Amino acid sequence: MANGFRARNLAIVGLGLMGGSLALAMRDHADCISGVDRDERARRYALERGMVDCASADLHQAVNGADVVVLAAPVRVIVEMLQMRIGSYLRSNTLVIDIGSTKQDIVDAMANLPIGVNAVGGHPMTGKENGGIEESDLSLYRGRPFVLCPSRRTTPAARLHAVAFVETLGALPIEMDAERHDQIVAGISHLPYLLSATLVATIAKQARDDSAYWELAAGGFRDTSRLAASDVTMMGDILSTNTQAVATLLAQFRMQLAMLETLLIAGDDHQLGESLQPIRQARKEWARDYDSRR
Amino acid sequence: MANGFRARNLAIVGLGLMGGSLALAMRDHADCISGVDRDERARRYALERGMVDCASADLHQAVNGADVVVLAAPVRVIVEMLQMRIGSYLRSNTLVIDIGSTKQDIVDAMANLPIGVNAVGGHPMTGKENGGIEESDLSLYRGRPFVLCPSRRTTPAARLHAVAFVETLGALPIEMDAERHDQIVAGISHLPYLLSATLVATIAKQARDDSAYWELAAGGFRDTSRLAASDVTMMGDILSTNTQAVATLLAQFRMQLAMLETLLIAGDDHQLGESLQPIRQARKEWARDYDSRR
Repeated sequence: MANGFRARNLAIVGLGLMGGSLALAMRDHADCISGVDRDERARRYALERGMVDCASADLHQAVNGADVVVLAAPVRVIVEMLQMRIGSYLRSNTLVIDIGSTKQDIVDAMANLPIGVNAVGGHPMTGKENGGIEESDLSLYRGRPFVLCPSRRTTPAARLHAVAFVETLGALPIEMDAERHDQIVAGISHLPYLLSATLVATIAKQARDDSAYWELAAGGFRDTSRLAASDVTMMGDILSTNTQAVATLLAQFRMQLAMLETLLIAGDDHQLGESLQPIRQARKEWARDYDSRR
Repeated sequence: MANGFRARNLAIVGLGLMGGSLALAMRDHADCISGVDRDERARRYALERGMVDCASADLHQAVNGADVVVLAAPVRVIVEMLQMRIGSYLRSNTLVIDIGSTKQDIVDAMANLPIGVNAVGGHPMTGKENGGIEESDLSLYRGRPFVLCPSRRTTPAARLHAVAFVETLGALPIEMDAERHDQIVAGISHLPYLLSATLVATIAKQARDDSAYWELAAGGFRDTSRLAASDVTMMGDILSTNTQAVATLLAQFRMQLAMLETLLIAGDDHQLGESLQPIRQARKEWARDYDSRR
């Protein structure tokens, strides 16, 4: 991307799949990349492969010299870093951006950073089934939506700077406020995870008395249950920072389910079909658009 | 399979994906295959490709001369055929087997066939996203479980005959009674479909006010929502012949969901993690077994 974005000192806090892939994508757009992680193995991995120029367990030292800081950690770790330790070490005009999966708690914490720090909440809509820096992928962000949520520390210049950063990753910046973001991901990501986990819990309970449930389960079950295999610590972190929006979506889901169940039990085949047809149509249209964007 | 199964006159009623694939798999194990379908295009397709030796719209004529009859139609069509028209045309000792997705209504209808007809309910756990005889696949049944449910017209000899037929297809026969079958598929197939459809309905409702729901939805949503794109007529047929079992599973699902939601809203991260971890483990173990069987 020829948008002129360049970091002198880019600090990436958290050397996992997301931070590692970000380092690879920014390699040619930063004079120096510092990686921060408590895990010595992750630091050594990043250093040995030239993903970073230096690596340290010391957050303060790394962000002290940076003009761009990316917080690539779980949501509650990011919030804690923003609240407790990082503000006084950041230089004025530093761009701080994060990649946490929920945004309200994070932009609230950003609001209390020192004036002069340019902080923007971020959420790239990408990932992989397995995490860890070993899974890093140069093209993880490419062509994927990257939501940007303003905080009270987002100046107009910081917004433009953040958009240029996202474009440099090859991602597609989409700006929206944190509340709207959190409602949307509750629907498209956290609700599907809970449904998937609950489906598996339901079948596992039945299968205690009859293992044929597992033996006969096939492709439809596989797809619907896949998210249940997500990392539990990560999902717990995400759900617990988005409880209200998730509860609202669950209420909506229950209402829709009750409507379909009522038609089913009443034996109203015609109306059941009339309800299911536009659902099918909506899924097919979305899938066609989604595939064409990839 | 060298189990000695051979049909003289095999009648396949219904020339869609399932019936067409069955014709291909039985091609070398039957002296003559007759196809029955009301759709002239499907009949011509099957004839032109040599999948069947003759094709007709006349059910009675085709089953009249058959020693093996396979009913490859939607559940309610199969039930109607068994109840209304087929019995008096079947010869004594004919093996009648079906491939409908629910079994109780079908084996109940089989019970009223004339004494001397050997009828067994069947459900192969296989399929494809798109139906139609053009999608027929020689290996569709190969290595897949094929449930066999006895009816009041299943003699011990008919059981063995049905098992040999299933093995000739390359499928894995699993015998169980119809009630148990219908409970299991309610859990592993019909519940996942309803969850998937309800998820899409929930998101579609939100997206009426904010199209960013569709824009940001990604891989997790894609997998969880895939079943919502299933054929509505087919799913309506299946659900309406398994209402009681589906309602029971839905009640179980709601209970499990309420448990997880209670922990979430209470902010009990520890217990939520403790509940989600064995779910994750169960999904991972099942997926490993499932993949190793394929």
